[in-house]
Amino acid sequence: MRNYSALQRDRLTFKPVLPLSLNEIHSLITVKEEILKDVDSTIQTLFPLTKDQSFLTFHSKINTNQKNHPLKIGVLFSGGQAPGGHNVIAGIFDAIKKINPHSELIGFLHGFKGLLNNQSISLNQEIVDSYRNQGGFDMIGSERTKLETLDQLTTAEKTIRFHQLDGMVVIGGDDSNTNAAFLAEFCKKQGNSVRVVGVPKTIDGDLKNEWIEISFGFDTASKIYSEMIGNLLIDSLSAKKYYFFNRLMGRSASHITLECALQTQVNLALIGEEIGEASYKLTDIVDQIADLVCLRSLQGKDFGMILIPEGLLEFIPECRQLLKELNQFLNTNKIAVHANGENNHLIQLLKEQLSDHSFNCFSCFPSSIQMQLLLDRDGHGNVQLAKIETERLLMTLVGEELEKRRLKKEYQGKFSPVPLYFGYEGRSGLPTNFDCHYCYALGYVSALLVQHEATGYIACIRHLEKPVEEWEPCGVPLTRMMQMEDRGSKNQAVIKKALVDLKGTAFLDFKEKRKRWETEDVYLCPGPIQFNEAKFGLNPPISLKHFVK
Amino acid sequence: MRNYSALQRDRLTFKPVLPLSLNEIHSLITVKEEILKDVDSTIQTLFPLTKDQSFLTFHSKINTNQKNHPLKIGVLFSGGQAPGGHNVIAGIFDAIKKINPHSELIGFLHGFKGLLNNQSISLNQEIVDSYRNQGGFDMIGSERTKLETLDQLTTAEKTIRFHQLDGMVVIGGDDSNTNAAFLAEFCKKQGNSVRVVGVPKTIDGDLKNEWIEISFGFDTASKIYSEMIGNLLIDSLSAKKYYFFNRLMGRSASHITLECALQTQVNLALIGEEIGEASYKLTDIVDQIADLVCLRSLQGKDFGMILIPEGLLEFIPECRQLLKELNQFLNTNKIAVHANGENNHLIQLLKEQLSDHSFNCFSCFPSSIQMQLLLDRDGHGNVQLAKIETERLLMTLVGEELEKRRLKKEYQGKFSPVPLYFGYEGRSGLPTNFDCHYCYALGYVSALLVQHEATGYIACIRHLEKPVEEWEPCGVPLTRMMQMEDRGSKNQAVIKKALVDLKGTAFLDFKEKRKRWETEDVYLCPGPIQFNEAKFGLNPPISLKHFVK
Repeated sequence: MRNYSALQRDRLTFKPVLPLSLNEIHSLITVKEEILKDVDSTIQTLFPLTKDQSFLTFHSKINTNQKNHPLKIGVLFSGGQAPGGHNVIAGIFDAIKKINPHSELIGFLHGFKGLLNNQSISLNQEIVDSYRNQGGFDMIGSERTKLETLDQLTTAEKTIRFHQLDGMVVIGGDDSNTNAAFLAEFCKKQGNSVRVVGVPKTIDGDLKNEWIEISFGFDTASKIYSEMIGNLLIDSLSAKKYYFFNRLMGRSASHITLECALQTQVNLALIGEEIGEASYKLTDIVDQIADLVCLRSLQGKDFGMILIPEGLLEFIPECRQLLKELNQFLNTNKIAVHANGENNHLIQLLKEQLSDHSFNCFSCFPSSIQMQLLLDRDGHGNVQLAKIETERLLMTLVGEELEKRRLKKEYQGKFSPVPLYFGYEGRSGLPTNFDCHYCYALGYVSALLVQHEATGYIACIRHLEKPVEEWEPCGVPLTRMMQMEDRGSKNQAVIKKALVDLKGTAFLDFKEKRKRWETEDVYLCPGPIQFNEAKFGLNPPISLKHFVK
Repeated sequence: MRNYSALQRDRLTFKPVLPLSLNEIHSLITVKEEILKDVDSTIQTLFPLTKDQSFLTFHSKINTNQKNHPLKIGVLFSGGQAPGGHNVIAGIFDAIKKINPHSELIGFLHGFKGLLNNQSISLNQEIVDSYRNQGGFDMIGSERTKLETLDQLTTAEKTIRFHQLDGMVVIGGDDSNTNAAFLAEFCKKQGNSVRVVGVPKTIDGDLKNEWIEISFGFDTASKIYSEMIGNLLIDSLSAKKYYFFNRLMGRSASHITLECALQTQVNLALIGEEIGEASYKLTDIVDQIADLVCLRSLQGKDFGMILIPEGLLEFIPECRQLLKELNQFLNTNKIAVHANGENNHLIQLLKEQLSDHSFNCFSCFPSSIQMQLLLDRDGHGNVQLAKIETERLLMTLVGEELEKRRLKKEYQGKFSPVPLYFGYEGRSGLPTNFDCHYCYALGYVSALLVQHEATGYIACIRHLEKPVEEWEPCGVPLTRMMQMEDRGSKNQAVIKKALVDLKGTAFLDFKEKRKRWETEDVYLCPGPIQFNEAKFGLNPPISLKHFVK
């Protein structure tokens, strides 16, 4: 069990509010509505048993004194942490205990690994109570193992059968929910009546569609980053001497960067999706930043901040191409890379084997970044673009560009860049009240979906912009969110990753305002998250408000 | 003027409480008490006019309907930002307006530079109100110019005379308060009746002595860092895969690191003062960390966090020696250092000219750190130990040591280090209620010292562990805090920098507990600063509580 700070202890006693329609579980009715959108024909073939399900909503009705059987539900976390995860579990626990006090909740340890190895603990009142409204996933741990092969599905179903589970709740991102969809189909095929239900988790905000308004954890993470960004902007106003190059966690999509920009009104925020659509080169981005630095310098301001989404390089066509060629190269040439030593031979080989275009792109990287690219590879030996310290890459390239301009008398300022990366500290903070309420309700809905025999569903809440009481819980068939995608070597059925919508109002709002932010320093400092909801309100993410417009 | 987030706007309305003895300004009396401690004889020679002053405390007395003349006071920030600075100004403003509504407050822009160049603005109600309880120093800016030469003192006195100031308040750290002491003496000698008063500012916590219990800003900064550290520790409990090497701002002294360790119960916190006292070598520290990593790995834990004070290297004798020799070398050999290129010639020269011991120390640094040392020099061309990314240095050296142990079969874990640096984000956050009250009271006391004809004083508040109402404001002659010190080339009168007291209860408490923290992961997550004082109390820093024991 945990130790607690004063605030952690106080948060244990916070009581999330439930949407009104979830208040009367004993008399809840589900309403099925057909979703009009057609499901892709390949998806239909892959999911013969779960493809035709309806959209479900919940309504209270007059109490019928109906007797409910106890439920036995398994739950697991999959993938990176997101604030609020423990409240999903608390929501499931409270719901099934309300349905019938003899219900049981089983936590599988360390993600799908726990399901595959049949490692679990029984989650009792004491355990659940000691993690209410707390950050992290440490109650049962998490892990990145996937559930993809037939072997894995077979083993997982065996564990589910072993425990005689009525339901299995998978708390995860797009990939984990894809796995959940396959598990649901597989179990049904095996005649196992377990209901597999997903819950949309990820701080990255890229699990989002017409039903999922936002994944949980995004609100807390972007508010934690915005707190730090706001502090640094206030620092800039006084110190007036640094350019902060600030990379933000968030994987491919730039949702977090966009949200933080809207929260803080920073001078420049690069949006990967926009850069990708315009097919920018790396030098275009360097020029854009150097232009900003020059413009501000003319106004006497040699300071500012640039937000850089973690996934930036993936959106730049020449970097994507370089990556592809580098992976080919590294797979065909089993050559030693020396972290600190001489790599002339390696560089010569790269020159011979990469395309001119890619070699030029590689050559313009500082040598430390080149080494990082070659050394820091993933489990399959592939170069990891996301691991590159893009903030250092850009500040070096911008510095070089500014020196060129200085020689041409186009720039006379002082350029003191500071590299920053905000990542892990956002994943495990104490969840905001928004994420506390939201996750608790998602947990409740998951339990109800299990109770109402819905398998292959994901728990959703609509109208998150309204007061919690008016939120609309629902269940959506996972197959409705799936599509076929070319991922690496094969065509796969996956849940679509949501990128920043360049026609969405959040981006358009940002686009309209950002010119002013470049030079006017209308910085906002959102400050530390306050849990005093009566005083400060619920404050859903700004980009959510735009979503529901 | 600023833009405001919802929280910034709310904080504008926060009303700091005053210690009871400051409530009745119109009838306040000062009580002089002799301080027993003798002042150094050289200090006595340097401060003939301000050396013999008494310690002052304030008490309310029965209202005498005494009429107070308006005061005209100048104020400036000097050096790095610390949360709460704007409240010092608000305290001065409210005090002098209460003394007489015709009083005036002049803000000098960008520190001593504004005083030297006579650049100032009149601080009216609207300006002061728009910065209450806000972070940053941007109301009037700050800067690092010192006030040391006779020329500078002469110019500063001229500006003070030009404005006919009754008082000049210097908000700064140890050096700035030293400058204030000299300015007080100089003005008195010139027959200028201005009262020069200092206010103890610095997040580093190293301006501390028998009268100053803590400098302002330390509380907020260490709580902001502790929030992030706590989040990362919770992340570790779930992800279980990273070693965070976390460098913390704080200059030479390790106060912030000690405070954050006490707040979060992190696995290992290096305290520079302890390392200095034991004359550790760099390899001793690397071994200590590698031992911890091995020990935890045996328990199945390949994760954890190490806090590293910014000033660490300055405490390691061999690094100090290397620094000294490097500076000599760089001053005698005007040689080009190539950031990205070949430096064989340079390395050869270093080998010839440094002592063997220092060259070996230099050689064990990763080449990126070597380049950083040689390139990133201060205005005088000196190597800046504090600028070195010690977190990267240590994680590289620990990684190398672990690989050696792996070959000897002494270590079989997976070592994934992540470098972190928390700095600027702590300097400009919204001040905690503690810092808001404290700074406001310090401002009030400064104004009263001016009113009571006290020059060469620093404003202090004692018994900060008690409720604000019971705090004891006082004025202490700056000369009482001064001593002669060998700083670089000359012997100077300075205010003593307070290092972590290895016999103090804060350190002893940490020392007693830390063995357990190494392996038991009794992490605390203090969470974001809450301003709801009625609910969460005032929470002064933990090391302060120890101070006043």
